[in-house]
Amino acid sequence: MKLPKGFRFAGQYTGVKKNASKRDLTLIVSDRDAAAVGMFTTNKVCAAPVQVCRERLPSLNVRAIVVNSGNANACTGEQGLRDAKEMTASVASGLSVDAKQVLVCSTGVIGRPLPMEKVLKGIKELLPKISAEPNSFDEAAQGIMTTDTRTKTTFRQITVNGKEIHIAGFAKGAAMIGPNMATMLAFLITDAEASPALLGPIIRRAVDRSFHAISVEGHTSTNDSVTLLANGASGQSAEPVRDEFAKAIEEAAIELAVGLVDDAEEVTHRLTIDVTGTRTEEEARKVAKAVADSPLVKTAVFGNDPNWGRICSAAGYAGIDFAEKDLSLRVNGTLLYDHGVPTKFDANAESARMKENFEVHIELMFELGQASCRFWSTDLSTGYVRFNAEYTT
Amino acid sequence: MKLPKGFRFAGQYTGVKKNASKRDLTLIVSDRDAAAVGMFTTNKVCAAPVQVCRERLPSLNVRAIVVNSGNANACTGEQGLRDAKEMTASVASGLSVDAKQVLVCSTGVIGRPLPMEKVLKGIKELLPKISAEPNSFDEAAQGIMTTDTRTKTTFRQITVNGKEIHIAGFAKGAAMIGPNMATMLAFLITDAEASPALLGPIIRRAVDRSFHAISVEGHTSTNDSVTLLANGASGQSAEPVRDEFAKAIEEAAIELAVGLVDDAEEVTHRLTIDVTGTRTEEEARKVAKAVADSPLVKTAVFGNDPNWGRICSAAGYAGIDFAEKDLSLRVNGTLLYDHGVPTKFDANAESARMKENFEVHIELMFELGQASCRFWSTDLSTGYVRFNAEYTT
Repeated sequence: MKLPKGFRFAGQYTGVKKNASKRDLTLIVSDRDAAAVGMFTTNKVCAAPVQVCRERLPSLNVRAIVVNSGNANACTGEQGLRDAKEMTASVASGLSVDAKQVLVCSTGVIGRPLPMEKVLKGIKELLPKISAEPNSFDEAAQGIMTTDTRTKTTFRQITVNGKEIHIAGFAKGAAMIGPNMATMLAFLITDAEASPALLGPIIRRAVDRSFHAISVEGHTSTNDSVTLLANGASGQSAEPVRDEFAKAIEEAAIELAVGLVDDAEEVTHRLTIDVTGTRTEEEARKVAKAVADSPLVKTAVFGNDPNWGRICSAAGYAGIDFAEKDLSLRVNGTLLYDHGVPTKFDANAESARMKENFEVHIELMFELGQASCRFWSTDLSTGYVRFNAEYTT
Repeated sequence: MKLPKGFRFAGQYTGVKKNASKRDLTLIVSDRDAAAVGMFTTNKVCAAPVQVCRERLPSLNVRAIVVNSGNANACTGEQGLRDAKEMTASVASGLSVDAKQVLVCSTGVIGRPLPMEKVLKGIKELLPKISAEPNSFDEAAQGIMTTDTRTKTTFRQITVNGKEIHIAGFAKGAAMIGPNMATMLAFLITDAEASPALLGPIIRRAVDRSFHAISVEGHTSTNDSVTLLANGASGQSAEPVRDEFAKAIEEAAIELAVGLVDDAEEVTHRLTIDVTGTRTEEEARKVAKAVADSPLVKTAVFGNDPNWGRICSAAGYAGIDFAEKDLSLRVNGTLLYDHGVPTKFDANAESARMKENFEVHIELMFELGQASCRFWSTDLSTGYVRFNAEYTT
């Protein structure tokens, strides 16, 4: 797939991570001023780089994003804020732009000051290496990884009057793990011409249907960030194809989000949860989230147990008003619960089918209205608990 | 400890459970009309006996409670309602009272009709065996157990003008497990004289501070019920000692609730979570619940990891407004996080201390106001996941 025009990338190892075979610094540079919008963690304990980006967005003239992995620069007080700003100033100086035109993200251990000497040295080394080659894009995607086992990337293209608009993105880490409170970071870039006013509602909608619709353990991190840059280098405005553009951004975000679920720690199944027939999308989301977050549903799926009771009772405490007869449930296409009554089904066959497939499709069907939503979650495995219980200082 | 006067008890095996060495039917009988109040699951998918009790409470003249374990009579439709009512009618007939004076609870497998022949035969056999002996009380406490490894009982006594008021209670099952969606059931009885109007606020407050302040996995079951009966057999009204009486009920409820946490499936640590210095108790509860429900906090405790980052970031997404500097954290008395900044502490020593003790004391200290609350939770162990992932039909 083609990368958006007018962007260059780099990723390399600087010494923040212990393992020198891993990249820990990433640059995304736009050759021209890019409109930029972002969405950030709602956690009251939020990292220094999040505070810096919040101040600077939305923006009309972003020129770069610098990301380090291995240290989250969170819970680091005033020093953390100074360090985050210094990272942006260092990149800005290399590009001869203003520090305010540079965004910054961090992910990794929290509560420890950034090793600024290494980071600043890394930035200086990295700046001359930026390139528009796919290989550099991939190295940039690697540079943001923490416990991810693979990069998550996405590419989209729209043709308008013979002109092409390109969208690309990469993301990392759905699960928070300790002490590396691994954050969700996602970066979307496009060469469409678009104002922050156009991009704002599009990113909010896309995030609602992607990153806000996945649940690994329901723990909002200190550093979660999604950023969208549009630099206009295609010479084509997104305005006349607003809906198509919004849909492409949403699909790209969903591809990244589902990629995060599939690469979550020690996951053995992906749950795809469809809730239909509620009065509002908000109601559907409440039900989907209750099911997606239920440890009992998640352990049952880990055990390949088609446990309709856990799923329906999770729906029951989701906080929406319904009677039992309003609800039916299908798992992998088989009706297990029909208008409030469990069906007679072959539990062993259903279990065997769960065992054979990575994806488990859960459909909760109400008859209250026309709204719906889709959520993704992971199962809860003994491996996950072991992984997250390891005492590591 | 002395049992409240005017109550008789029995518990025995009737054949609902597979294992004949376990009791599965319990009777609590009051020799005189008892004022009764109850609190029930808010789950929209709620069992037939819950629906029956809701109709009958509050009441001025309850004479008995019948409880079966092994089958929850949930998701059983109209037949389930008829069966629940028939259980109460059968007990009422034996006691020569009205069916409406009898309450009913069930716990166990959901989605399967009650084996009514066994249950009704059991009730007939059990009725002649009721007795006021402590041994019968204990057998009644056994009859409600599902995956509990021990009975949970409580006793309190208040002396008023030389007269004694007695309170007793028993409870079962904090964790929902599948397919035995094990419910939380608790029964409190007293020989105080008290109206439902007096008892209502007392039970609500007590449940808020006990059963609503424990969290094993955040999954509200279809059958959760707490019932309080006051039969007046002591000849002493609770009215003149309202506060003392309320406190004794609250303490009794807390003792049962903490007993449930300690006997939760595969638990290796109890978390006692104190949140202080919030603007309202509601805020304190939000923070406590976020920490109590966080799989990352729970796995860290399982791993004896004094992970301040997971605890503070759980507080951060609890939905209350605060700045990082407003929050400090102690774990087992040691300050780990001081007004928004992690302290230097001996992590290995803290870990060793966690390992040695069943209880982990987590104190989240805000400086926003004077409100506070206490919550209890469990750690999340590999054993829990294995236990709940077992595929059993």
